[in-house]
Amino acid sequence: MAQPFAISVPPLDQKAMEQARLRQQQLTKPAGSMGRLEEIAIQMAGITHEVLPVIQRKAVIVMAADHGVTAEGVSAYPSAVTPQMVLNFLSGGAAINALARHAGAEVVVVDIGVAEELRHADLLSRKVAPGTANMVKGPAMTQEQVQESIAIGREVATSLIQRGVDLIATGDMGIGNTTASSAITACLAQVPVALVTGRGTGIDDAQLTHKIAIIEQALAYNKPDATDPLDVLAKVGGLEIAGLVGVILASAERSIPVVIDGFISGAAALVAVQLVPMVRDYLFAGHVSVERGHHIILEQLKLTAILNLGLRLGEGTGAVLATTIIDAALRLHREMATFTEAGVSDKEDI
Amino acid sequence: MAQPFAISVPPLDQKAMEQARLRQQQLTKPAGSMGRLEEIAIQMAGITHEVLPVIQRKAVIVMAADHGVTAEGVSAYPSAVTPQMVLNFLSGGAAINALARHAGAEVVVVDIGVAEELRHADLLSRKVAPGTANMVKGPAMTQEQVQESIAIGREVATSLIQRGVDLIATGDMGIGNTTASSAITACLAQVPVALVTGRGTGIDDAQLTHKIAIIEQALAYNKPDATDPLDVLAKVGGLEIAGLVGVILASAERSIPVVIDGFISGAAALVAVQLVPMVRDYLFAGHVSVERGHHIILEQLKLTAILNLGLRLGEGTGAVLATTIIDAALRLHREMATFTEAGVSDKEDI
Repeated sequence: MAQPFAISVPPLDQKAMEQARLRQQQLTKPAGSMGRLEEIAIQMAGITHEVLPVIQRKAVIVMAADHGVTAEGVSAYPSAVTPQMVLNFLSGGAAINALARHAGAEVVVVDIGVAEELRHADLLSRKVAPGTANMVKGPAMTQEQVQESIAIGREVATSLIQRGVDLIATGDMGIGNTTASSAITACLAQVPVALVTGRGTGIDDAQLTHKIAIIEQALAYNKPDATDPLDVLAKVGGLEIAGLVGVILASAERSIPVVIDGFISGAAALVAVQLVPMVRDYLFAGHVSVERGHHIILEQLKLTAILNLGLRLGEGTGAVLATTIIDAALRLHREMATFTEAGVSDKEDI
Repeated sequence: MAQPFAISVPPLDQKAMEQARLRQQQLTKPAGSMGRLEEIAIQMAGITHEVLPVIQRKAVIVMAADHGVTAEGVSAYPSAVTPQMVLNFLSGGAAINALARHAGAEVVVVDIGVAEELRHADLLSRKVAPGTANMVKGPAMTQEQVQESIAIGREVATSLIQRGVDLIATGDMGIGNTTASSAITACLAQVPVALVTGRGTGIDDAQLTHKIAIIEQALAYNKPDATDPLDVLAKVGGLEIAGLVGVILASAERSIPVVIDGFISGAAALVAVQLVPMVRDYLFAGHVSVERGHHIILEQLKLTAILNLGLRLGEGTGAVLATTIIDAALRLHREMATFTEAGVSDKEDI
């Protein structure tokens, strides 16, 4: 199989961005007064090569997998919740479903490593393994499993893009996956584990201390190479995180904007950007999570979150909600009148 | 005419809020993991007396007026822009129109004090005066003009509510109105003028120093009584700000949620809450503006903004965009499955 990072991501279209920037200055508002909404429209022009970009079809890809490290008691919920929530996604009852209906996005659920057998007509069954191994006792995944998971992510994203999806949001489900994300972030951002480890689905102080100790133990045992994101991913990552790396890489490769969700998606983005730095320009940070490692990821990626609503659920919820702000930014950009069209005096006319 | 503050605002429905809170705990997500979206749904239950609230018809009321203080050169744009932008609102080319289409809100434009004669079939012509007087040389308004403007705001809001509008956003247009809002905020929040005075539509450093001096001069000359919000409003306020006070009071009185926009709407909310403290519970702060006095208003009102996108336009833009986040919060609240419905293990089941 080809190295997943041997992909070519084009730079943003500077000419389209310049024309979009010029248009923003001609719209009937003081220059810069729509803040982030102006920046979003300009970035979207650079990504899509269109001065007046339109989003016609959104999808959120929710990658689900289990984590061997849950045997260490790092989560407030049992692993059984992973398949239960996958079925909830498929029957439309989860938070991501309600928000996807709100945002007009398709929900694509992928079983890339749920421990339990799952069958459902709408489920993409791409199980690489029935969960990762316990990272305290060895690598979570083999390098082959990482490569396979990334390839699956690429294939799922590419197939959606070929069917006309022009904006992709990332989502995750996997009891134990904040543990993996903290380990990845501590390693790649070179910061202490305690600084990037939070309460996940809701553990108490004692459990948090235990979770930090477990992650430190896993890092000490596996000694991932911080300069090799694929080694880090294999040793302390997760199948769904590797899958999301593939989703992000494939989208950027095909000039499709990617809205990343919270901490788990962020860990995947960190890996993807370390593999192919140009990927960063295709990313929008949907929101900043309560999970404490997430703002460190955003700092590393030099991304400013669109929303800050105290969310900490995952599933792609913050990303999908943020797509509606991108819609709004593009609508302003396309539909507002210019000073000339509206007969309004510009600052320079005084 | 009745004193506008002699209105009765009912307390939030604690029983509906308790039931909404209970429901949030039963939905298939860790308790609290949807952060502000959970709080919004619970507050909306308290306002509407419905455990599962629905918004069916939104309107943004844009109050437009001119300011005599523009004669002192406090703004980057000439007063002529006020009527030009009003016509832009009416022809659908302004930012507020694009965002209102995005959010599904009706735009109601009120001429409560534009200096120029304006006629348009869709304009509510309720001109109290052709702009305020120059506050540097005397009170901006008479107490009668304040009372009349508040009454007009109440009438416009009440009429919309009677026609079925169940969520109101506030908006403003008026060259010079950040000057009035800074003066109101400095006085009511008892903070130095320099701390609450920003660049408005985009003045430079020298103009900002001048703007601060002008506001200090107006406050020194008029000596508004900080314990009497109507005196402050008359001496250094604006016709559109007084109109928005009326909009906010009438909405709260009729148990209709009000999403306030940025600095100008915030100044109106500050006055309204000082007149009738219970009003505060009916407010949502749509966004936090770049305009520096706005975060002081939000602190005073103990409100946390829903969005923080670096906006500083006014017109109701941030408020209307924030209504879509309220929609999302209510959709989650109504449509998500409970743990029992979805057969998902809750934390307590472990």
